[in-house]
Amino acid sequence: MKPQVQSITSFSNPKVKWVSSLKEKRSRDEEKKFFIEGYREIFKAIKGGSDSSVPTLPVRLHSLFISPDCFLGENESKLIGSVTCPIFELPKKIFEKISYRDRPDGLIAVAETPNANYDWDLFPALNLNPVLIIEGVEKPGNLGTILRTAEGAGVGLVLVTDPRIDLFNPNVIRASTGTLFTLPTYISSLSETIVNLRKQNYSIHAVTPEGKSLYSNTDFRKKSAFLFGSEQYGLTPSAKEESDDTLYLPMFGEADSLNLAMSCGIVLYESLRQRNTGS
Amino acid sequence: MKPQVQSITSFSNPKVKWVSSLKEKRSRDEEKKFFIEGYREIFKAIKGGSDSSVPTLPVRLHSLFISPDCFLGENESKLIGSVTCPIFELPKKIFEKISYRDRPDGLIAVAETPNANYDWDLFPALNLNPVLIIEGVEKPGNLGTILRTAEGAGVGLVLVTDPRIDLFNPNVIRASTGTLFTLPTYISSLSETIVNLRKQNYSIHAVTPEGKSLYSNTDFRKKSAFLFGSEQYGLTPSAKEESDDTLYLPMFGEADSLNLAMSCGIVLYESLRQRNTGS
Repeated sequence: MKPQVQSITSFSNPKVKWVSSLKEKRSRDEEKKFFIEGYREIFKAIKGGSDSSVPTLPVRLHSLFISPDCFLGENESKLIGSVTCPIFELPKKIFEKISYRDRPDGLIAVAETPNANYDWDLFPALNLNPVLIIEGVEKPGNLGTILRTAEGAGVGLVLVTDPRIDLFNPNVIRASTGTLFTLPTYISSLSETIVNLRKQNYSIHAVTPEGKSLYSNTDFRKKSAFLFGSEQYGLTPSAKEESDDTLYLPMFGEADSLNLAMSCGIVLYESLRQRNTGS
Repeated sequence: MKPQVQSITSFSNPKVKWVSSLKEKRSRDEEKKFFIEGYREIFKAIKGGSDSSVPTLPVRLHSLFISPDCFLGENESKLIGSVTCPIFELPKKIFEKISYRDRPDGLIAVAETPNANYDWDLFPALNLNPVLIIEGVEKPGNLGTILRTAEGAGVGLVLVTDPRIDLFNPNVIRASTGTLFTLPTYISSLSETIVNLRKQNYSIHAVTPEGKSLYSNTDFRKKSAFLFGSEQYGLTPSAKEESDDTLYLPMFGEADSLNLAMSCGIVLYESLRQRNTGS
């Protein structure tokens, strides 16, 4: 049944405050909801993943907030027509208040926060290459950029271990351009991740400035998992010890030339190059 | 002669307003000065480049603003002792007002804006490999990240053609972590750039999603120049026509998986891999 569109006309409508509050972790935890802004991001949240053996995060929309005055494209009505959750229409001025963006595009969804813990029993991830492990990531924007790049490089599964951030932080979703919903991305402990990947004959490559082997001299055609540490602290000692090898990227100039997301992208594209060319 | 440190104790001191104003392009243009914040960035501005045949941008400090209460490290006094320009000391509260950062580290320099136009007669750039050309870049932070990564990948010279931003925007400097001052970075027109590089037997590789050749199947061991377009508009038609070839990066998922800086980093590190391994 097509949901009816309800109008919100006042700044003091409690829904306005409620949606805005979901930008904060405390409210997301209390409400078990999160905030998805933007056509592209909501589109991907509805679409989900496609051809992976591991499902993407199960996202169920709770409500949709729209402001047709802000629409930028031509496909908004199709997207709105495809949802079954309650829809609220807001004038531009009120929408701008709940928006997270400088130039909102008139679409904000609230979704039920899914369980993001990886279930190793259900999804052993046998045929995915490569797998990406991100340990202790601190900046939501970095994780988002990593997800976006990982999808481009054909990563099959991303495991976020011991994150210092909330996976459903609006900045993760924004920087990922919605890839959080189309690339299988889960939380797992590092020890469980390593044990399970090793059981399945993955080589676990830790990438760190103190690595011992040149990344591009390493064979990534076999089942590979790449392990990256946090922006500030790098990899934990146990992460380095538990890996099969440690890899470095060559670097001219100062040692801080590459940020975390850039290092990820370079290594992931080298692995794609090797898989594509067979050498 | 060691400069004397002058104290600023009032918010209404005209220097406070003046330094702050340099965050805006109009003031930078009027004053012919720009704003460098942070120990690392000022250190690199003083140090400049080292072993390149092309000099880095000539930076001359005009004045230094310090707030010892904000210092984070142990080398600030050495840096302060090395400058010959006037030095002004501010209490933390006033310094925070002129700072561009959330957590200022107590050091802001004002420098004379150098002429950033590349002089092809003086510096023919004969033995640099690779050269990086960035056309029409729109976001200061992206240019900064590109410079930082380019230095890591051993780029010899960066030419920014037809930029839509000011090279001395504080966000360029910040995202570059000061690499703007240690890696030769200049402005040039695209046509002059292409003519001059071709004279010197550079292959000019345009990188674009509509490229015809796979980037990693291309030989980058010869003298190579990489040409990247703007975030929103990509390469201009003439940039594509004037290049020797057009290269693409393979991409799974959506077509927008890689941002400009990430594409740059991946291609530059592939060129470094080829130069290092000879294949």
